[in-house]
Amino acid sequence: METKEISQAVIGRLPRYLRYLGDLKDEGVERISSQELSELMKVTASQIRQDFNNFGGFGQQGYGYNVEYLYQEIGKILGLDQKHNFIIIGAGNLGRALGNYLNFERRGFIFKGMFDKNPDLVGEDVRGIKVMPMEELEHFVRENDIDIAVLTIPKNSAVNIVDVLVDNGIQAIWNFAHVDLNVPEGILVENVHLSDSLMKLSYNINRMSQGKK
Amino acid sequence: METKEISQAVIGRLPRYLRYLGDLKDEGVERISSQELSELMKVTASQIRQDFNNFGGFGQQGYGYNVEYLYQEIGKILGLDQKHNFIIIGAGNLGRALGNYLNFERRGFIFKGMFDKNPDLVGEDVRGIKVMPMEELEHFVRENDIDIAVLTIPKNSAVNIVDVLVDNGIQAIWNFAHVDLNVPEGILVENVHLSDSLMKLSYNINRMSQGKK
Repeated sequence: METKEISQAVIGRLPRYLRYLGDLKDEGVERISSQELSELMKVTASQIRQDFNNFGGFGQQGYGYNVEYLYQEIGKILGLDQKHNFIIIGAGNLGRALGNYLNFERRGFIFKGMFDKNPDLVGEDVRGIKVMPMEELEHFVRENDIDIAVLTIPKNSAVNIVDVLVDNGIQAIWNFAHVDLNVPEGILVENVHLSDSLMKLSYNINRMSQGKK
Repeated sequence: METKEISQAVIGRLPRYLRYLGDLKDEGVERISSQELSELMKVTASQIRQDFNNFGGFGQQGYGYNVEYLYQEIGKILGLDQKHNFIIIGAGNLGRALGNYLNFERRGFIFKGMFDKNPDLVGEDVRGIKVMPMEELEHFVRENDIDIAVLTIPKNSAVNIVDVLVDNGIQAIWNFAHVDLNVPEGILVENVHLSDSLMKLSYNINRMSQGKK
């Protein structure tokens, strides 16, 4: 596969393709045309063909795509055939929800450790992983080849922990704290700001109800 | 305020402005120039001015913006001065994490009820709200002026519950289920597909590590 630069917009659409292809696969569908996929996903067939052309097209269009092949190839592009160890910092409800989310393993993300500063939570079991105290974090990250830290802690704690994580070899942060993190170049951050999503919903609700008046 | 059409891209940026302005307010900052805000938020001052011009500009640029005023105005645009009752369907870890998230009330979202089909969870308390069985859902939504349903249930359950919600007056769905929901026109859906976000991270990690080779 060529490694030409693909836009983040295209990359951002790949997980949705993968989701639909996974469902089709589960339903036993073997081939699908771009037209059928278009109707299912409510995007134009031309968009689908353009997106796929970034990666060589994935097979003849007249005959349709092989669902299993397409699923595997998109998975490889997304790097889901690679394994990455991750830890979760913050053993509250959100941290536990993520720790219990089995799909991570299917995506190549291996849940290795969980940390919390609250002594009442230390020792609790989340899907076979015991919550550890923060004092053990640095050593654990260094010794266990941890690539990714998931942050489900308040914003001030998140800001303060970043340097420790980066110094000990973390390459990527999946950040649920309600703050933009400053990281050195080469360190990835993917933010999930739930509050921002909620506010967008709020805006659209109010706009819609104004339209009704 | 005029109700001209504002692009979703601009709307999508407003919550981030609000977040920074809230922090500035908490730090006691009264005025800020577009240049200072630009440095803080790492976007161009020109972008900030353009975004704000969609809403009349919010005051003189030479003298800087009044932080409190700007915070209030952006909040109003986002509809945060309006109240909306919401319920959470799914009392697992993610549902409980969202139920316990106090920021919702600050944003005008009032947590009214929680539902689960698992009898073991029924009766549990989440921030003063008792988890109810699914049989009570329809009646509760109708009688309590519920606008928003938060779905933290598996995808098949989510698909099956949509009609019931819409028939009983729900206007908007904040969907955490790993599926695109089909809703009638006029019903809002805001999706949080955590798995999509994780795959984007996966892609970028692999791309980065290929670059290092």
